[in-house]
Amino acid sequence: MSAGLVGGLVLAAGKGTRLKSSTPKALFPILGEPLVYYPLRAMEESGVSAMCVVVGHEGEAVASCVRDLGFEASVAFQSPMLGTAHAVMCARDWWKELKHLLVLPVDAPMLSGETLRGLIDSHLSQGNLCTLLAFEAGDPSGYGRVIRSGGAVRIVEEKDASPEEKAVRLCNGGVYVFDVEALDGVLERLDNRNAQGEYYLPDAVSLLSQMGSIGVLSVCEDELRGINDPLQYAQLSELLRLRVLTRWLSLGLKCLDLNSVWIGPRVEIGHDVWIEQGVTVIGRSRIGDSCRIGAMSWLNHVEMGSRCRVLGNVRMESSKLGDGVQVGPFAFLRDGVIMEDGSLAGRFVEIKKSRIGEGSKVPHLSYVGDASIGRDTNIGAGAITCNYDGVSKNPTIIGDNCFIGSDTMLVAPVSVGDGATTAAGSVITQDVPAGSLGVARARQRNVEGWSRRRHKKD
Amino acid sequence: MSAGLVGGLVLAAGKGTRLKSSTPKALFPILGEPLVYYPLRAMEESGVSAMCVVVGHEGEAVASCVRDLGFEASVAFQSPMLGTAHAVMCARDWWKELKHLLVLPVDAPMLSGETLRGLIDSHLSQGNLCTLLAFEAGDPSGYGRVIRSGGAVRIVEEKDASPEEKAVRLCNGGVYVFDVEALDGVLERLDNRNAQGEYYLPDAVSLLSQMGSIGVLSVCEDELRGINDPLQYAQLSELLRLRVLTRWLSLGLKCLDLNSVWIGPRVEIGHDVWIEQGVTVIGRSRIGDSCRIGAMSWLNHVEMGSRCRVLGNVRMESSKLGDGVQVGPFAFLRDGVIMEDGSLAGRFVEIKKSRIGEGSKVPHLSYVGDASIGRDTNIGAGAITCNYDGVSKNPTIIGDNCFIGSDTMLVAPVSVGDGATTAAGSVITQDVPAGSLGVARARQRNVEGWSRRRHKKD
Amino acid sequence: MSAGLVGGLVLAAGKGTRLKSSTPKALFPILGEPLVYYPLRAMEESGVSAMCVVVGHEGEAVASCVRDLGFEASVAFQSPMLGTAHAVMCARDWWKELKHLLVLPVDAPMLSGETLRGLIDSHLSQGNLCTLLAFEAGDPSGYGRVIRSGGAVRIVEEKDASPEEKAVRLCNGGVYVFDVEALDGVLERLDNRNAQGEYYLPDAVSLLSQMGSIGVLSVCEDELRGINDPLQYAQLSELLRLRVLTRWLSLGLKCLDLNSVWIGPRVEIGHDVWIEQGVTVIGRSRIGDSCRIGAMSWLNHVEMGSRCRVLGNVRMESSKLGDGVQVGPFAFLRDGVIMEDGSLAGRFVEIKKSRIGEGSKVPHLSYVGDASIGRDTNIGAGAITCNYDGVSKNPTIIGDNCFIGSDTMLVAPVSVGDGATTAAGSVITQDVPAGSLGVARARQRNVEGWSRRRHKKD
Repeated sequence: MSAGLVGGLVLAAGKGTRLKSSTPKALFPILGEPLVYYPLRAMEESGVSAMCVVVGHEGEAVASCVRDLGFEASVAFQSPMLGTAHAVMCARDWWKELKHLLVLPVDAPMLSGETLRGLIDSHLSQGNLCTLLAFEAGDPSGYGRVIRSGGAVRIVEEKDASPEEKAVRLCNGGVYVFDVEALDGVLERLDNRNAQGEYYLPDAVSLLSQMGSIGVLSVCEDELRGINDPLQYAQLSELLRLRVLTRWLSLGLKCLDLNSVWIGPRVEIGHDVWIEQGVTVIGRSRIGDSCRIGAMSWLNHVEMGSRCRVLGNVRMESSKLGDGVQVGPFAFLRDGVIMEDGSLAGRFVEIKKSRIGEGSKVPHLSYVGDASIGRDTNIGAGAITCNYDGVSKNPTIIGDNCFIGSDTMLVAPVSVGDGATTAAGSVITQDVPAGSLGVARARQRNVEGWSRRRHKKD
Repeated sequence: MSAGLVGGLVLAAGKGTRLKSSTPKALFPILGEPLVYYPLRAMEESGVSAMCVVVGHEGEAVASCVRDLGFEASVAFQSPMLGTAHAVMCARDWWKELKHLLVLPVDAPMLSGETLRGLIDSHLSQGNLCTLLAFEAGDPSGYGRVIRSGGAVRIVEEKDASPEEKAVRLCNGGVYVFDVEALDGVLERLDNRNAQGEYYLPDAVSLLSQMGSIGVLSVCEDELRGINDPLQYAQLSELLRLRVLTRWLSLGLKCLDLNSVWIGPRVEIGHDVWIEQGVTVIGRSRIGDSCRIGAMSWLNHVEMGSRCRVLGNVRMESSKLGDGVQVGPFAFLRDGVIMEDGSLAGRFVEIKKSRIGEGSKVPHLSYVGDASIGRDTNIGAGAITCNYDGVSKNPTIIGDNCFIGSDTMLVAPVSVGDGATTAAGSVITQDVPAGSLGVARARQRNVEGWSRRRHKKD
Repeated sequence: MSAGLVGGLVLAAGKGTRLKSSTPKALFPILGEPLVYYPLRAMEESGVSAMCVVVGHEGEAVASCVRDLGFEASVAFQSPMLGTAHAVMCARDWWKELKHLLVLPVDAPMLSGETLRGLIDSHLSQGNLCTLLAFEAGDPSGYGRVIRSGGAVRIVEEKDASPEEKAVRLCNGGVYVFDVEALDGVLERLDNRNAQGEYYLPDAVSLLSQMGSIGVLSVCEDELRGINDPLQYAQLSELLRLRVLTRWLSLGLKCLDLNSVWIGPRVEIGHDVWIEQGVTVIGRSRIGDSCRIGAMSWLNHVEMGSRCRVLGNVRMESSKLGDGVQVGPFAFLRDGVIMEDGSLAGRFVEIKKSRIGEGSKVPHLSYVGDASIGRDTNIGAGAITCNYDGVSKNPTIIGDNCFIGSDTMLVAPVSVGDGATTAAGSVITQDVPAGSLGVARARQRNVEGWSRRRHKKD
């Protein structure tokens, strides 16, 4: 038997009513990734041959998110939403040709690919009609109990449970592998005679148990924790945060504050990296060897080469740093900034959609937007690219080895040639040729014996 | 009997010597509110008919704080400070016409109005001369023990306790309801023959016990925790922080970091609000529906409408935001800023005592002070209101639909009319009429073949 | 016998391979100080008469760090590194004239001077050949066991231990005092017939035990925790952080967040100081009486007088503040800034290598570098010292009682005399005499009826 015949289905249609949000549960972020990311990654790691996500509430948004995450996964729409068994039915066109079907809830971010692999292997080797994950609950109240008598397995909801059944602490984790042919046979036989008027997938297990063997695999309760309200959301996020962070420590990350550092699950970290307190690194970020990330910094989708120094209180999004780049403190990089090797973005500096060439520096109080800056150029303190003319955004091109004087206003579109200089305080509205000095300012005069008290406007 | 006859008295005269501060204990802040706020709010919630605060150490400052907090409370002065019973005596003019008197220490911030309500109800229904709150201490050493024998109740201080009495773990919480007439009778009979030479309120309980029934209501130790030194101060603050935060989570707040988020007791939070790590919101703040507060932000007395986005690393005080306002990252708003609907305060921007009109934007590196800006106006990067002339602060008025060029200096008092423009780098010292361009800058010239090495001053 | 005869030796040659870093273990920082700081300080407090550090991996860097820390300590080089006994041998020239030798590992930052003092006293009073620190391990696996039979003491490594020996939970702490003469005699008799081919110091203990008495002093396991991997590094840092912080609380520091505040071991804190959440104070810093340090601030080597207010989100390094100085929010001071009494560095302000005179203010959006500013001078918003001309850094001198207009560019080298004024927006390239107005700007003109749509360059 081969895992190649197993498809994975994520049930991501729910609203998560108790979460009290217009954001659907599947898109609630944990460590910067939407919940739906986690079961998809776990399934991918488990080696399933195909994946599908059932969406419903805000279905288009969830479907679009799945695409953006880059998973190869089909999407099935559930509407109206009539329960978990109905959700599985809504994806029937996708799974009907498979041999086995793994079904996961969208809110099980602690579940590992290894556990799913074990579940699938167990299912395949035992030839079960269904194999499910269960856990011994510290407090089982509210969960469906897994009742085994002889070979039979039933899942009994809390409200339908007898006192003896309520005493059982083995609970249903909501994660199943089904034999597709058997599942297909029983799904139509389910009814919705319950308070919610919904079709429940656990009922399929009870029916299948009358037809063949059901496997039950126990895992630790933490791995099956779900998210039903904001407190559980916070608690699960914390568990996952610590899991990801301590994994990086075991791989060599130097980080002294386990209380306040957030590393997303898609982040990659090189050798000999140091991260200070209060740092968040999320998204598809990559921190190269020997980088240091200073306190209170926040990085999302940032790639950096080796030996970069982020000095602290820095915010970066969707940016790419070469080797030996220095940033901060108090810098903000966003929207496709490229900092080439050895370049610098300093204090109170904002850069957006720009390229800063090798060895070039933007040290103080600048806004650089829609600009391309060559190599070994120095941007003086307070220099600004005036990229917006009230109607549209315009580009600024600065060459190699330029010296942009302090407080230079570069009124875009404008270009400054290689080796050119602009005088401090100049408003540059015309191109400055290579090797030239661009100057636009009045000559200084000193008014002696001038008294501030007599003149208000100075 | 009605609660309307019950007055509430807070004993807030103490210095808190072990806190080692010139700030009196009553003004030690927890979650942004002075300690004296907490018993007053709890009493208010309990439904007492009148409130009074006994002040002593730094009494004027405490009295002024009580007024600023907006409570309807009288103030009585205790001087010199001769113990808790003496403190109650100092307020006699205020309570002598009441039927019942609730007495609270100032440092019991965990005590809820509900508990006080229960204490009062118990007192009234049992017709006691005194009813007090007690707790089973994990470690009773240092506390006064509540000794019951037959119907009698005595409070025995640690140092006066016999070995059997020391073994008692039921301790006095320092919260009492007294029958006023009975209390009045015994207060004068107390003596101060003790090490401190002070008159102690617990001694009144022992005397009253000889005259009638004393009630004892037990509550959880946490609710009666006090603050005597900096460590207790920190610990109690943490308990309260978690209580307030988890209450908001139960109401729907989305917040993933329970370690680092601080919400004050007067804050109100709307539906579907998301708060990131390291955020503090204190004072009389209100966060509207669907707002998002980014990491490392600090808000005090800030009201915001719906759908605002605070991007992170933002500091705001005494400011008011309309709907859909965006702020940050790295912005500082203070002292009566009004951001109207859809307006923006961006990066490295400071705004003070100003109004930013609907849809207007202050995106980068600006200081706006004492200004009024109309709607749909854009303030260029680096533009500054020069509101201070070395002698006084002056206003800047900018109309609707203006375009203030980058690095414009607006030398106040000055006004820019509707639809006007200022050229980048201009120093505007005279009013710019509506629809005009204000320009004050030199024409650019390029000096070709200019070499930086030969010219130092550029 | 006198402690004056006891020398202290720190074994700091190791690479710390499992820490996976190019930084040698001895230089791993905890609370801002390198690991090697901690045993040196503890030894100094214990009253040893001389100290030496054995360095090896990155030995020059470690030696240089020891000098910079200001300890009077010799340095011995170990190369190649053949084990702890070999390390001790490498320092033989230094210790051979002593009577007793205290030997410490470099990674025992929790070890107090008091404990070392007790160890030395015990050693001297008992006349032992060796006295060592041991601890009852929660989980002894991996540690060398201290085996006592009769008067004899042996240290048995895990791998050489019999099942009975493995059951012993008393472990070797790696901290010893030796009788120098006896130690000298046995060191040469050690062999390196083990897996690593190294000479182990514990083997010396076993040999000495055959010659005389060995003392064993038990201490709490926490005090002997070492650092072998990044997780232990983080855990030990957290233990130490809490120890230092709670010590300051017991001395009177007001700090409400025990989770997020970092105080270094060399920091001194005055009376009635308040520190908010997320604050780091490290290095040789001193916080004067009645100072307040606002949230999310980071201070390294900062001395401040009394009544300073750091408003939050401030970063300061190697700076010195007088009394009543105000800084922030969002300020960056570095590299030898001196803020005299009552001066102010405000929002989005960077200051480096400069002196700000008494009562002078740099409120908004300025960069001040290589400058000296007199007293009662106001630096307007956006004013900048243009200290770099593309080749070198130049000084700016500003006198007392000056008014530097907003957006003034001070092109250094340049000076502004006492009582002088510069007009807003001026580029000052020549000295401004005392009492004068320096102005360099174009006259404003208003172009009426100007339409932005027709003109792109504004």
